Amino acid sequence: MMQFPSKLIADAVASFSKLPGIGEKTALRLVLHLLKQDKDQVSSFSSAIERMRNEIKFCSTCHNVSDEQICTICVDTRRDQSKICIVENIRDIIAIENTGVYNGLYHVLGGIISPVDGIGPDQLNIASLMSRIEQGACKELIMALNPTMEGDTTIFYITKLSKDKNISITSISRGIAFGGELEYTDDLTLARSFSGRLPYENYLSN
Amino acid sequence: MMQFPSKLIADAVASFSKLPGIGEKTALRLVLHLLKQDKDQVSSFSSAIERMRNEIKFCSTCHNVSDEQICTICVDTRRDQSKICIVENIRDIIAIENTGVYNGLYHVLGGIISPVDGIGPDQLNIASLMSRIEQGACKELIMALNPTMEGDTTIFYITKLSKDKNISITSISRGIAFGGELEYTDDLTLARSFSGRLPYENYLSN
Repeated sequence: MMQFPSKLIADAVASFSKLPGIGEKTALRLVLHLLKQDKDQVSSFSSAIERMRNEIKFCSTCHNVSDEQICTICVDTRRDQSKICIVENIRDIIAIENTGVYNGLYHVLGGIISPVDGIGPDQLNIASLMSRIEQGACKELIMALNPTMEGDTTIFYITKLSKDKNISITSISRGIAFGGELEYTDDLTLARSFSGRLPYENYLSN
Repeated sequence: MMQFPSKLIADAVASFSKLPGIGEKTALRLVLHLLKQDKDQVSSFSSAIERMRNEIKFCSTCHNVSDEQICTICVDTRRDQSKICIVENIRDIIAIENTGVYNGLYHVLGGIISPVDGIGPDQLNIASLMSRIEQGACKELIMALNPTMEGDTTIFYITKLSKDKNISITSISRGIAFGGELEYTDDLTLARSFSGRLPYENYLSN
């Protein structure tokens, strides 16, 4: 532990150090940066964070973060109501939205099934997904989960629950990332990129 | 610019992104981390930062950060009052204090002389250093400035001002860092490590 000449500094450094990926030295650099800013700026920094935590809501339909009871995506009737994209967390929604390729709805699971971590289906937003499916508008569930064992288990579980619901289930494709090198790709990914191979015309239109 | 599903999130991300070395993606990761914490924790995070900025003082003697009018170092009579270590900023004091090798006082210049950046002696805490020297307790000024052209200019300037004050001026030694490789050391450092060479016995006791 570093020693600081001021308890105020020490407290601020300790607060920053609790954030993921921020060590004590980085925390100190951030604190001394803020120390050089106007009081107003620092005040708006800290209030933006506190307001975010206190006033944020979660969409009662898809569990996305939202400023209102229903999020801007669910409320947007121009979006394709027949597609629901299943994601693990909010960060995934933001990433997909920023590609601009998807115009359907989302459903945030809040995690993935992971027996090792003691996370079963009951801890995830799966019941609410099923009741959305019951409502009948959804024709396709697009699984956009990370390509891990846990992701696959979760897809398998939801697929089983959705049987007889007259709904098609797809997954985003997995393979070698754009710009990636075949030589350095792990076995599982390489194997999948073979079993998931596409006719050349489809590949081009992708 | 990324798009966010909530203005509250967008504001918090924008606030974090203003910090040095924190890009938008990292900012989002920090914000979503805070979103998962208890409201109390987030509130104590934001108040630690705001209090730090609003309540911090600068020591009227050495310009170190302080919770009081005089900092804990200046107020400590067990410290060697005959030595003042000149540093550029507060971060340097923290670094030196954490080595535990120095038991004298400090003086924070608040920068170094840099004509290119328009920083002259008048923008630095040099007048207050001179009046500390006038008081007569200080017998040695230890220059702990970065080994740059600006650092050297600053040392030269202060040395000139302190002439006839009956005070010895030293500089922390410069050379190849512990664990550093001679082969990859720049010319200037290597040259200095020759001109600053020590008899072996002195080197060992260093």
